[in-house]
Amino acid sequence: MGEGFFELEHRDRNGRARAGLLRTGHGIVETPVFMPVGTQGAVKAVEHRELDDIGARLILANTYHLALRPGIQVIRDLGGLHRFMNWQGSILTDSGGYQVYSLSQLRRIEPDGVVFRSHIDGSIHRFTPSMVIDVQRVLGSDIMMVLDECPPADCGEEYARRSAALTLRWARESREHAQRTSPLYGHPQFLFGIVQGGVHEHLRVRNAEDIVAVGFDGYAIGGVSVGEPPEVMYRVTEVTASVLPWNAPRYLMGVGTPRDIVEAIGRGIDMFDCVLPTRNGRNGMVFTRQGPLSIAKERYQRDHRPVDEACSCYTCSTFSRAYLCMLFRTREILALQLASLHNLAFYLRLTREARTAILEDRFDEWSRSFIEQYSGGEDGVYQPAEQ
Amino acid sequence: MGEGFFELEHRDRNGRARAGLLRTGHGIVETPVFMPVGTQGAVKAVEHRELDDIGARLILANTYHLALRPGIQVIRDLGGLHRFMNWQGSILTDSGGYQVYSLSQLRRIEPDGVVFRSHIDGSIHRFTPSMVIDVQRVLGSDIMMVLDECPPADCGEEYARRSAALTLRWARESREHAQRTSPLYGHPQFLFGIVQGGVHEHLRVRNAEDIVAVGFDGYAIGGVSVGEPPEVMYRVTEVTASVLPWNAPRYLMGVGTPRDIVEAIGRGIDMFDCVLPTRNGRNGMVFTRQGPLSIAKERYQRDHRPVDEACSCYTCSTFSRAYLCMLFRTREILALQLASLHNLAFYLRLTREARTAILEDRFDEWSRSFIEQYSGGEDGVYQPAEQ
Repeated sequence: MGEGFFELEHRDRNGRARAGLLRTGHGIVETPVFMPVGTQGAVKAVEHRELDDIGARLILANTYHLALRPGIQVIRDLGGLHRFMNWQGSILTDSGGYQVYSLSQLRRIEPDGVVFRSHIDGSIHRFTPSMVIDVQRVLGSDIMMVLDECPPADCGEEYARRSAALTLRWARESREHAQRTSPLYGHPQFLFGIVQGGVHEHLRVRNAEDIVAVGFDGYAIGGVSVGEPPEVMYRVTEVTASVLPWNAPRYLMGVGTPRDIVEAIGRGIDMFDCVLPTRNGRNGMVFTRQGPLSIAKERYQRDHRPVDEACSCYTCSTFSRAYLCMLFRTREILALQLASLHNLAFYLRLTREARTAILEDRFDEWSRSFIEQYSGGEDGVYQPAEQ
Repeated sequence: MGEGFFELEHRDRNGRARAGLLRTGHGIVETPVFMPVGTQGAVKAVEHRELDDIGARLILANTYHLALRPGIQVIRDLGGLHRFMNWQGSILTDSGGYQVYSLSQLRRIEPDGVVFRSHIDGSIHRFTPSMVIDVQRVLGSDIMMVLDECPPADCGEEYARRSAALTLRWARESREHAQRTSPLYGHPQFLFGIVQGGVHEHLRVRNAEDIVAVGFDGYAIGGVSVGEPPEVMYRVTEVTASVLPWNAPRYLMGVGTPRDIVEAIGRGIDMFDCVLPTRNGRNGMVFTRQGPLSIAKERYQRDHRPVDEACSCYTCSTFSRAYLCMLFRTREILALQLASLHNLAFYLRLTREARTAILEDRFDEWSRSFIEQYSGGEDGVYQPAEQ
């Protein structure tokens, strides 16, 4: 597997929080890291140069969406996703497993893949572990994910057990197929396994051990934040992370609120992605150290202050809450741009601050102080569906 | 009236095209100039710093919209429009006359003002010439416009005559009220009169003479581009401009396509505004020197080239037609941003190039060459309604 891909720089002396580096063909990514979500090859309402400005070096794109539209043949003709998007940083592509679960109709899980109906045009598609690797080879992402099956939060133990077993089988096939194939564009592609097992701790531990035995460049915890209470998610994260090897990056998929991220970093997680900052931003929720604000509310109509006085992003250094409030009330597109940009800046600053605290062995104190201050406000409500 | 506000730098030796300077409390604006439209205090899908980048020094905002929402009291509390928006450049506010005509329901013209029903919430409002000046004092725009009555393109001569007479009466009241009142924020506010008269050249000439006799800092030609053929608009523009004083700026309201702008500059116009570049941009029409493209068409799906190879804007220097095509087809907000930005950059470059040509006494040659090259493509269709 990828030598020198991940470097564990430091582990906080007082806990499990870690600081590290990811080295890809498109640069170095400091962890813990939050990955802005660029579902269809674009982060919604945010320009590439703005992502650069706020320190985003690694973004996520969705295999499911790109495979359906514009389609693999177009991406291949255009020289891969980096070139198509003209994004200079790193890209992680998910496998589509979660989107098949959450978006498509008529999903049918079979032993060697999943058949589903496109949410766009109703056409029938089939994803297999090998085919999903092939697609990600064409996309040319720096980090590829294996196809997994993501069971619903309320599934019984038997379903979760079978799902974990299928995910393991697919993980093996994915690994083998990745070894049989090569990157197309001259830069390396790393492959992450995904641990499933629902909310059942013993299934998680067992599946994690099995997936680790297959051997990947990094390990993701999937099937979380699908409706279970936060405490259950934290527990599943902690138990699963404890089984994962120290010298590989750990990615908690689709998580979460600022508090979720801080809690998970404290349990040894290195990587995150979530649509929350952009989607909720588009709905007028903006994050501050004192908790999120619903900026379109009348109370902000004459508020001269920036959204977050501690923030140095373009939105906060230029505009008032009053202006944002008016932009949302008059449905200006600029509202979506400024709120999305600020929220991503907030998330990226959060993981940067966590990293600094870890490197100084004071993560525990920092995280307690952050959560205390943040919980003054209403927290963001996570909406687990497509961005 | 404003001493030193307008400086006529040069008149092209071979025609009527002019290059000049506007000096406001917020800087110098080179003419001919195109003003991006920021209807509700924001240019749709474009950030202030992006407007700076592409050389926009003067934008337009709509009195009608801002008076209805957020309302004058809010703007006053926030210290005027410049401070509210945090826009460092100059602002021209229209009077609302055109929006009352095009947007509101139940419009009733009375001798001393217009009564109408808000298009937002159906509430009843009354605009009078004095009140519209008061509103613009609160907005604090650098250039204010008088309230006018904008008749439909197909109105008869008698209607146009009465409308021009009413516009003249209102112009006098506006001028007097502006003299009785003062700017609120320490920078000067210049006032433009508006010439009406429909498509009837003798009415235009008469109205222009009358409006000039009232005396303003600048003169606008209103009631054009409301459905009449381009040739009629060019003729009305030429005839009207010939009556306007050489030492004041001339503004052709709501115009137009790139060709319209070039034609009007050749007839002595200095200032333009239009929603065309932003609105059509949002609908996937992007401008090039060879005419506009409908970028979402399948033929651009694999086109590696930038939208306009002659353009140095962020969109053209970063992204391909293929990427924009995909962004529009997948309905990404980024599509609206990138297309709007490019189109405004195109318009601003157009007026800058015209200015350079005028200063070098080769406007005629430049404009013929531009129109010839540009007419290779389909031209933008102007949609005269609210942005």
